[in-house]
Amino acid sequence: MASLITRLDTTEADFSRKLSSLLAFEASEDEAIDRAAAQILASVKASGDTAVLEATNRFDRLNASSVAALELTQEEMQAALASLNAERRTALETAAARVRAYHEIQKAECGSAGFSYTEADGTVLGQKVTPLDRVGIYVPGGKAAYPSSVLMNAIPAKVAGVKEIIMVVPTPDGVKNPLVLAAAAIAGVDRVFTIGGAQAVGALAYGTATIPAVDKIVGPGNAYVAAAKRRVFGVVGIDMIAGPSEILVLCDGTTDPDWVAMDLFSQAEHDELAQSILLCPDEAYIEAVQASIIKLLPAMPRHEVIRTSLANRGALIKVRDMDEACEIANSIAAEHLEISAENPQQWADKIRHAGAMFLGRYSSESLGDYCAGPNHVLPTSRTARFSSPLGVYDFQKRSSMIFVSEQGAQTLGKVAAELAYGEGLQAHARSAELRLKS
Amino acid sequence: MASLITRLDTTEADFSRKLSSLLAFEASEDEAIDRAAAQILASVKASGDTAVLEATNRFDRLNASSVAALELTQEEMQAALASLNAERRTALETAAARVRAYHEIQKAECGSAGFSYTEADGTVLGQKVTPLDRVGIYVPGGKAAYPSSVLMNAIPAKVAGVKEIIMVVPTPDGVKNPLVLAAAAIAGVDRVFTIGGAQAVGALAYGTATIPAVDKIVGPGNAYVAAAKRRVFGVVGIDMIAGPSEILVLCDGTTDPDWVAMDLFSQAEHDELAQSILLCPDEAYIEAVQASIIKLLPAMPRHEVIRTSLANRGALIKVRDMDEACEIANSIAAEHLEISAENPQQWADKIRHAGAMFLGRYSSESLGDYCAGPNHVLPTSRTARFSSPLGVYDFQKRSSMIFVSEQGAQTLGKVAAELAYGEGLQAHARSAELRLKS
Repeated sequence: MASLITRLDTTEADFSRKLSSLLAFEASEDEAIDRAAAQILASVKASGDTAVLEATNRFDRLNASSVAALELTQEEMQAALASLNAERRTALETAAARVRAYHEIQKAECGSAGFSYTEADGTVLGQKVTPLDRVGIYVPGGKAAYPSSVLMNAIPAKVAGVKEIIMVVPTPDGVKNPLVLAAAAIAGVDRVFTIGGAQAVGALAYGTATIPAVDKIVGPGNAYVAAAKRRVFGVVGIDMIAGPSEILVLCDGTTDPDWVAMDLFSQAEHDELAQSILLCPDEAYIEAVQASIIKLLPAMPRHEVIRTSLANRGALIKVRDMDEACEIANSIAAEHLEISAENPQQWADKIRHAGAMFLGRYSSESLGDYCAGPNHVLPTSRTARFSSPLGVYDFQKRSSMIFVSEQGAQTLGKVAAELAYGEGLQAHARSAELRLKS
Repeated sequence: MASLITRLDTTEADFSRKLSSLLAFEASEDEAIDRAAAQILASVKASGDTAVLEATNRFDRLNASSVAALELTQEEMQAALASLNAERRTALETAAARVRAYHEIQKAECGSAGFSYTEADGTVLGQKVTPLDRVGIYVPGGKAAYPSSVLMNAIPAKVAGVKEIIMVVPTPDGVKNPLVLAAAAIAGVDRVFTIGGAQAVGALAYGTATIPAVDKIVGPGNAYVAAAKRRVFGVVGIDMIAGPSEILVLCDGTTDPDWVAMDLFSQAEHDELAQSILLCPDEAYIEAVQASIIKLLPAMPRHEVIRTSLANRGALIKVRDMDEACEIANSIAAEHLEISAENPQQWADKIRHAGAMFLGRYSSESLGDYCAGPNHVLPTSRTARFSSPLGVYDFQKRSSMIFVSEQGAQTLGKVAAELAYGEGLQAHARSAELRLKS
């Protein structure tokens, strides 16, 4: 059974080393991909629509006559929405409504109103918060085309107040995904171009005659898209470059082991590099989860992907107690952290680093992936130590507001001049001193 | 006079093209620098202290026997503070207190408390906000060593609740800057290592036996430091890679032209690539500012830098009216925007994109650079379209909190399963369905 999934115990002498090696993941930086992406970006920057059209027709095997012909009409989007069966449409609309509701509250709670305060001498200081003007959303084509991702990327931008959302989605061989288009219609995406790859990233970053330049590009993509996003960062904003998805389950041994096994599968089925780890103080329970894995795996349609992921990157780890589990969880800083336990809040209080926490045995990660409300775009590969779920705040920016009164300039001017002379910046000092009354 | 500073008029036929060419700036990406930085990072990752020590002794011409010998003691920091004259020390302490006060209010206003709400079926959703554990601050050595930058980078981290701040500052030939060390003491920096360059970035990102790994690296540096920061992004968080500093002055023609001229100088004196632009509807006033420039420039100690900066990158631009000035300001998205006018708020209300706005004729940028309170680390090169001043929020991150009640799992489970089947992710669907009561 060693080949099914790794078993570890924190009391082993070399546990830390084994855990580190299990967690180790470095995105391969392929020089050839990076160079190819750079060339495509340069051609789009130089030739605009011509380059976008040429690359799209070539890579996606299309025969479009112009970039304008690659734009979908709102009628096509609405038709895609109308084509869904009632159950699926209702599910998509329910998910969108819940995601919207959560992000509306997030907006209200994250300081979107800015602030301002007045000092005794009349000086006013504060911060103004404004939405981005225009945002581009990259949606992958083919097998990884997830309508839920369209909702999760577009809705926070809408809630933030972004005036225009441009979606790009490649349609290799002209095949469109009606669920993705329906999600775009529900989310309120303004324009959709059926382009993808580095050429789509370049078009959004630099703008072309047909495709307007955006201020930020979000959404997942393949290695070419990731390389292109890294390169245009600074010209536009980008979101995080996502690594493989991860779930870490902390379980006190009181949850149905079938549930935990299936939660581990739900991450492992994404791809072979996805990571599913269980931390539990109860050896017998770990055995039971392993038995559930063996029992449930054969019936899963994606069992081959799950098997490879669990064997190469999964682990069932016996811990001394739940406190140690929390410590390890903080060092792993997982994208998804399930605390499947009695009184889960006591353990959540000890967690400093996680993209999202799923508390209690009914909070399966899959509920959060689709419809609980919070965003499913989360920091991977330990980046939860310093970054956050995608949110309304990613589509807003702040400006400092400084109004110094005449009286305020008298006191502040002397301080500034003293420090400016100390730094050898005399024009800074003089600029402050000119405002001093003699 | 054409060589002093460019004069433009928005009514000229090719104004847009001329403005674009004036604003155009692309950070030169030097392949050799990038490769050198990559090699140093690789050696630090592989050999830790040994590599850091070797590189530091070589590049900074030191003879340190160990990395531990490169750490400054708290006594040295306090001695540096004690060595300042009373005026300078008071100025530094006043600035620190004001910066701290502003960021305390920012923390209270930016959603640091997180939020949580309970739905009718008992499901609880929310967001937890936590500080980063440990942050590294890069401080340049030599001529660009600014104590004000130490305050502006360290204080928001402290206010956010970061437990440990590690500062690195190179000391070429062993020369230490007492003002920088004094600022570190005032700001509450925990540890200081006299190392710099890509080796310092590598040490902070990967950790060595002596230098602890951090979660985020902030602070400006030279081209090697910038290249190294780009490369370690993902292993740790980084702040923005800053471009040349910019000031844009919107003036209605009612401010003393000497003041505006000096404000333009205060940006231009930073370096030859800094950019100073005036927008004004009053031709006679623009002439007066130009006369002030000619009059005041010779007496400036840094007149050569100012002259080059104004000649190559500066401009005095005649606009049709203040409304047009605001439109242009939005397209420029300046780092520093002075609105030197009667009733400045009316124009500020029209500004969507700026790093910091300085309202009214007494609010010189230099007051904000040192002691008004808001941060002086601001988005450059039009990135104010999508990014914000450095703030408390840069040293915090959020985790989504999802507690789904048993009842909530019944409704959410059906929605999630429907969408998961639609995406071909059956384990996701089964994970939700296992929680449904039959």
